[in-house]
Amino acid sequence: MDGPSHSVEVTVRYAETDQMGCAHHGVYVVWCELGRTSMMRERGVSYSEMERNGVFMPVTRLEVEYRAAAHYEETVRIETRVEAPRSRSVKFAYEIIGPGERLLARARTDLACVDGEGRTRRIPQEVREALQPAAP
Amino acid sequence: MDGPSHSVEVTVRYAETDQMGCAHHGVYVVWCELGRTSMMRERGVSYSEMERNGVFMPVTRLEVEYRAAAHYEETVRIETRVEAPRSRSVKFAYEIIGPGERLLARARTDLACVDGEGRTRRIPQEVREALQPAAP
Amino acid sequence: MDGPSHSVEVTVRYAETDQMGCAHHGVYVVWCELGRTSMMRERGVSYSEMERNGVFMPVTRLEVEYRAAAHYEETVRIETRVEAPRSRSVKFAYEIIGPGERLLARARTDLACVDGEGRTRRIPQEVREALQPAAP
Amino acid sequence: MDGPSHSVEVTVRYAETDQMGCAHHGVYVVWCELGRTSMMRERGVSYSEMERNGVFMPVTRLEVEYRAAAHYEETVRIETRVEAPRSRSVKFAYEIIGPGERLLARARTDLACVDGEGRTRRIPQEVREALQPAAP
Repeated sequence: MDGPSHSVEVTVRYAETDQMGCAHHGVYVVWCELGRTSMMRERGVSYSEMERNGVFMPVTRLEVEYRAAAHYEETVRIETRVEAPRSRSVKFAYEIIGPGERLLARARTDLACVDGEGRTRRIPQEVREALQPAAP
Repeated sequence: MDGPSHSVEVTVRYAETDQMGCAHHGVYVVWCELGRTSMMRERGVSYSEMERNGVFMPVTRLEVEYRAAAHYEETVRIETRVEAPRSRSVKFAYEIIGPGERLLARARTDLACVDGEGRTRRIPQEVREALQPAAP
Repeated sequence: MDGPSHSVEVTVRYAETDQMGCAHHGVYVVWCELGRTSMMRERGVSYSEMERNGVFMPVTRLEVEYRAAAHYEETVRIETRVEAPRSRSVKFAYEIIGPGERLLARARTDLACVDGEGRTRRIPQEVREALQPAAP
Repeated sequence: MDGPSHSVEVTVRYAETDQMGCAHHGVYVVWCELGRTSMMRERGVSYSEMERNGVFMPVTRLEVEYRAAAHYEETVRIETRVEAPRSRSVKFAYEIIGPGERLLARARTDLACVDGEGRTRRIPQEVREALQPAAP
């Protein structure tokens, strides 16, 4: 995926660790969501407001490749990129970066656009525009 | 609290552990919710259906006293008791029991009854009846 | 993946839902873990004991394809299959099945075998044997 | 509790909401942990390092009083105060503040100090000093 990436940082919470002594692998899915919603917010798309208008964007596919562990209290950076949205779906790619610029994980998600009854619908025009890879 | 208690078992999940090597203390709150909703279901009250009818029961107070740790793969039993509901609120008490009948925690929650806008409202009559301590 | 599958059921918890009104997509990752550890336990492999012996099996790759939503209080079945383990890694495949035998999601995970310092190591022989697809 | 309070902000994550449309009540427990560990870190106590030295501080008691809901994307502030530590335990108090300085919840936790085998032990001297209410 090309285009600028959006950056957001998060500190690993104690509750996110498991008895292996590092962040549980399921937490990365929440971090990707954080990266994606943070990017949307920065581009002027409020997901809360979309939902109030009956537009939802559930994840339809998820892929994570884990490279290294993230530990409690470490600051982790989520780099999010978006691919040019199609009319009813959009793809995001993520890199989770740990201390010392170490790559902890790569991930990708596909999202669909649905209405309140779960039927696919077109992504609203202003959201499609905001999600262009080359957007600010 | 008097009256019969409702029992439900749960096995500690790996994702519920933290790096101290046992279930994170926040998980007990979810287990209490499990005990409470399981008791309601057994007594014929579907919380899903209540919500569809615009009746919600948020927790307004929570208290947990931790006695011993719960470990991954251990089976834990949640004993739930209910106190006679008032018109707009109800109290539950819980015991979390580990292997060998060891008491892991005691907890109490207060729940209010609200409508879709968050205003307190009366607990529906059939729910109040189902939640009598001496109910089956 | 061939071979018999292992089945385990789970009821969707209230805490697992999100404001879209169904189970959050991150929860499926925990359900897969549940399926996998339950299968291992049934085949006589205690993951707790492996860890006490300094053998860990972190997830190195994860893929989930979401088909339909799971709702609060619904019982969901996790079908887990294992692929013949290699010397240092093993793959699992999952189907998450909802009410009325509806397919909710398909998933795959790759796991590595590492020691207490995170270095890859051989899967213990008895674990490799227990994880043969054709095992009971 | 007297003494200065420590402030830390957190944005409500989508994964933290439930189908009632606001942050699940269990999440507040994680936010308190965030406030407490953030305060300790600011005062030069690394909980990670304490654990490496075999000193653990599990929660032994927890109390939360919920006043108002926190919604997705809202920024919430956690104000943490500490009470003068005793030799083997310490108490923290929290206020969770939402947009417009609205009080969302008050909470209290008691923590014990234990060694790697779970036996109570004295809080290390430097930790006791750092946790004095009047500390910087």
